Amino acid sequence: MPDSFSPFRRVRVTRFGRRAGAPPEDLAATEEPLEVRLHGKSFAVIMRTPGSDRELAAGFLLSEGVIQSHDDLGAVEHCRHPDHPDVHNIVDVYLVGDATKRVEEHLEQRRNIMTSSSCGLCGRVTIESLRCQTTPLPITDRINSTIAAELPQRLRARQSVFDETGGLHGAGLFAFDGACCTSAEDVGRHNAVDKVVGAMLFEERVPLWQYALAVSGRASFEIVQKAWLAGIPIVCAVSAPSSLAIELADEAGITLLGFVRDGGFNLYTHAARVDGV
Amino acid sequence: MPDSFSPFRRVRVTRFGRRAGAPPEDLAATEEPLEVRLHGKSFAVIMRTPGSDRELAAGFLLSEGVIQSHDDLGAVEHCRHPDHPDVHNIVDVYLVGDATKRVEEHLEQRRNIMTSSSCGLCGRVTIESLRCQTTPLPITDRINSTIAAELPQRLRARQSVFDETGGLHGAGLFAFDGACCTSAEDVGRHNAVDKVVGAMLFEERVPLWQYALAVSGRASFEIVQKAWLAGIPIVCAVSAPSSLAIELADEAGITLLGFVRDGGFNLYTHAARVDGV
Repeated sequence: MPDSFSPFRRVRVTRFGRRAGAPPEDLAATEEPLEVRLHGKSFAVIMRTPGSDRELAAGFLLSEGVIQSHDDLGAVEHCRHPDHPDVHNIVDVYLVGDATKRVEEHLEQRRNIMTSSSCGLCGRVTIESLRCQTTPLPITDRINSTIAAELPQRLRARQSVFDETGGLHGAGLFAFDGACCTSAEDVGRHNAVDKVVGAMLFEERVPLWQYALAVSGRASFEIVQKAWLAGIPIVCAVSAPSSLAIELADEAGITLLGFVRDGGFNLYTHAARVDGV
Repeated sequence: MPDSFSPFRRVRVTRFGRRAGAPPEDLAATEEPLEVRLHGKSFAVIMRTPGSDRELAAGFLLSEGVIQSHDDLGAVEHCRHPDHPDVHNIVDVYLVGDATKRVEEHLEQRRNIMTSSSCGLCGRVTIESLRCQTTPLPITDRINSTIAAELPQRLRARQSVFDETGGLHGAGLFAFDGACCTSAEDVGRHNAVDKVVGAMLFEERVPLWQYALAVSGRASFEIVQKAWLAGIPIVCAVSAPSSLAIELADEAGITLLGFVRDGGFNLYTHAARVDGV
């Protein structure tokens, strides 16, 4: 396994003001470009931490509106060209059914632009195109406030690469009883969300109406947008939401919790999904 | 002044598990799209916190390689069209001299793509195109390690909107004696860097060989890339650097410090610029 597959790398370091006796080496979170190809043509390049590359590609394509469900996905695999030097940084995606009809159109829209950490905005031509296609999520099940308050902490307990490097965002999907279904880490917080959504896509469990999304950082517009497209009704962020994240959550029918830490949270939208507040 | 000019907005909030008596209102950092136009045509849309929009546009154009110095900049101002509903979210930029010859080429490259928080990657066609045009920065002046260790803390003391919302990244430029020259806040950490670089562009002080850049979050590839293009020889990040940030800093001749907090730091590259380690 080449070193570039690893989520962290050894780096030389000089320490000042702490751990004077510590070794002159440390671990840094790996950041590398992943090229997502659609039917053999470059669709996007995403700066990401290696690991769950197929899931990242699938989740990203859902966020981008290229696929609507698992049914649109054919093969999703790392490039197998024997002579290509960078096969671990390329994922080849093939669509099936009606989705194949729109491949050229999607490729033309993207024109192989590079995106930073699958932000969910890059490549959009107009502000209007961001506003969703989808209908607001209905309120069905509810989550207990004490469980909601613990989700980021439960996510943090699963972030093994963060423990090593201190440098990764995390995202996790939790059932409403607090059980963690899947989690991922990445230098980009949007990537971490795409990875967990992509993992559920492969299991044919999208839309994710029965799950809450916990993220380690802030809630921006793009995080809420990705949740909406994946059908996730509850988003819990450790830090602050932006004004546009709150506005979009309100429109999307998403319950948005911010500053979820130290046993408490702030609830910004659609409070009816949370018991006990 | 319309409300959208404000860096924060009042939002309704329900609190759980803390400050039970607190009012049902809070402040959220404003996130809004800014359209940057080049000679009247849309060049990019950046999700940003309103404020220092002209500086953001100028710094972004430097990062994108559209301008090389202040000499390339003509008028940079908010849209003045009396009938346009969104003039505060549009900045019109006009280049002068030789730079005007390349306007069409730049517009064609971008094709009006939307970028998330001026990430410095969006719109690039190949990974190779990211690798810099510029030569490594020479080591001239040095900074004292104790001063370097304090820079993020000094930056934090200037983050007034963060105090209100808990939701903004900061970037600041400091002379090597620790004096803060300029600082900015934004929902996007790349934006905050573009804003401080843009402010210095307007003062004709770029390249910034005499300054250290402090950022409130992590050091990613793009932050180091922006520093390189602006000629900033020292980058101090509160949190972890990514592997690619370290590699690029090494190549760029940039001194990269991470985990700069609690009176200490980790030094990853070009230690010769730091005294006392």
